[in-house]
Amino acid sequence: MRIAVLGVGLIGGSIGLAARERAGAEVVGWGPRAQTLETALELGAVDRAAGSIEEAVAEAQAVFACAPVELLTDLVTRALAAAPSDCVVTDAGSTKRDIVEAVSDERFIGGHPVAGAETAGVANARADLFDGAAWYLTPRPDSSGILFERLHRLIVSFGARPSAIDAATHDRMLAAVSHLPHVLANALVSQAASAVSGDEPLPRTGPSFRDMTRVAGANSDIWTGIYLTNRDAIAQQVDAVVERLRAVSDALKDADADALREWNDLARDDRRRMLEAGLEGGSVTELRLSVPNRPGIVAQVALALGKAGVNIADMALAPAADMRSGSMTLWIAGDGDAERARELIAGLGFPAAVVEA
Amino acid sequence: MRIAVLGVGLIGGSIGLAARERAGAEVVGWGPRAQTLETALELGAVDRAAGSIEEAVAEAQAVFACAPVELLTDLVTRALAAAPSDCVVTDAGSTKRDIVEAVSDERFIGGHPVAGAETAGVANARADLFDGAAWYLTPRPDSSGILFERLHRLIVSFGARPSAIDAATHDRMLAAVSHLPHVLANALVSQAASAVSGDEPLPRTGPSFRDMTRVAGANSDIWTGIYLTNRDAIAQQVDAVVERLRAVSDALKDADADALREWNDLARDDRRRMLEAGLEGGSVTELRLSVPNRPGIVAQVALALGKAGVNIADMALAPAADMRSGSMTLWIAGDGDAERARELIAGLGFPAAVVEA
Repeated sequence: MRIAVLGVGLIGGSIGLAARERAGAEVVGWGPRAQTLETALELGAVDRAAGSIEEAVAEAQAVFACAPVELLTDLVTRALAAAPSDCVVTDAGSTKRDIVEAVSDERFIGGHPVAGAETAGVANARADLFDGAAWYLTPRPDSSGILFERLHRLIVSFGARPSAIDAATHDRMLAAVSHLPHVLANALVSQAASAVSGDEPLPRTGPSFRDMTRVAGANSDIWTGIYLTNRDAIAQQVDAVVERLRAVSDALKDADADALREWNDLARDDRRRMLEAGLEGGSVTELRLSVPNRPGIVAQVALALGKAGVNIADMALAPAADMRSGSMTLWIAGDGDAERARELIAGLGFPAAVVEA
Repeated sequence: MRIAVLGVGLIGGSIGLAARERAGAEVVGWGPRAQTLETALELGAVDRAAGSIEEAVAEAQAVFACAPVELLTDLVTRALAAAPSDCVVTDAGSTKRDIVEAVSDERFIGGHPVAGAETAGVANARADLFDGAAWYLTPRPDSSGILFERLHRLIVSFGARPSAIDAATHDRMLAAVSHLPHVLANALVSQAASAVSGDEPLPRTGPSFRDMTRVAGANSDIWTGIYLTNRDAIAQQVDAVVERLRAVSDALKDADADALREWNDLARDDRRRMLEAGLEGGSVTELRLSVPNRPGIVAQVALALGKAGVNIADMALAPAADMRSGSMTLWIAGDGDAERARELIAGLGFPAAVVEA
């Protein structure tokens, strides 16, 4: 099978590597930057570099368009104009309504691999980037079964889990769990920075502040497009949060202890449900331990758990201000493994507290 | 010196341990729960358990009151009534205006050690819990120099960094960098959980969502008191964020690309400034790498950096959905160490991307 990848950064490069290594496909790459294309060739992400979109797709059975969302409609349209009549064309954009509405060709099936937002660039491309990742597909009512099946099978061969979804549901869901967090992180960090007046020093912040603002100010080149193409769904989520915050503000102004407690308890329940939905594998236990913050400490804990076959689903190491001590949070899936982890960590001399659900 | 600790949980127990080990003090403990007091005695956090507040403080030179904020005014008032005339009395509450306004005794100096919110309970108490931690003190205009100096010296001996601040500034600052993040985490997690309709499954969430909601639904017994005692300052921060969110919502509805980009760029600048203020030690470099998510991977990276003497200021390991791969974010302070870290990690076969400031 011949596959064309248009745009060979982190996502396109990883698709190329996975297609070559796992689907035995021949991959032709094209990209707007000659240097990136050259690197993709060197890294084995593509078999051959094409000089134009048309050349890349000319004999392809599947085309993956990978670019910032605002460029995708043009890219896909050009690909469809030059691609064979039995070629499936898809994209890797984070929002789906705009492109699905703009492109009426029945060979087009929108896509969104949920992977790799954290590290950009073809240098980070990996054949296993999509292992276990969700990969949304937005087939049309008139999508050819043959083309959908071909695309689906390719994505499975990449290690991902394709699931069909309509574009509106996709965009609404992503607005809530991905785009809204970015908006709130931006608002929080700018509000906190402005909360000190005049020549006061910026307050020292703790680990929870860092956790909450890690995604603040994400790459503007990518995110401006995401915000624009999903603007109504995001605005709806933002407006809904505004209503929630006004209710909290009212409860605060009224000194309504019952309302504040109930609101906080509900958030704890919601957090647990979202967490378990996110991490799969059933219930998740959160362990927190106080540790000296020295170079070897993470290794010590990780090795002890690793030797026992207990995998760490998620981890956060939060140093105290002096970097000499800190608290470590571990997420362990499965009750049995969590209990073993707690015992192993206690054996190292760090009593771990299970955070109540 | 004799010190009384009223309330021997994580904070009180750690004060007891630090006072005994580092200040050579004799520590008398009191607490409302006999079992906790017994544990504190077993762990060496106190020399002696007192049967009442009055007995505990009778011959003390310094008293530390450690309890949920809404109980502190009563606790401190009872301590002052029974304490000697030359005894300094302080508390460990997260908000300061209420108690400072309520207690007019010149022997009282409000305090707030910024440590240990992550793990509760005397079982997690440690003599080094306060190493390098900020410890705010709110002396009164009429505070005795002798008493302030005694308290200050004790706190320094615990390893903490005391700094005097007026109660209003303290509460405003904490509202912005600690209480507001908790409010936003609650609002986000509940909004996301409600964004799916009817029988749709909860969407799987990624690492950035988990990072942002880690503090959601924190212990209601502690946080209801914090919200109430700092309600006006928190409401002011919440209202300010509401204004920011309305502006973003407007920019989204207007499809104003320039405004969205500028807003996002500003958030990036603010994040960097807040981060560097929080982590001290000058500029901080953020490294992101894609790694297989297996038990040994954190150890491998941490060991390589540890051997080279490069300390990890902050770390987050974010697994992909299948737990087999993920991305790791490392925060390294100092340009030289960051470059060494990048080279060491590259040597392990994980190219690390420096996240642009």
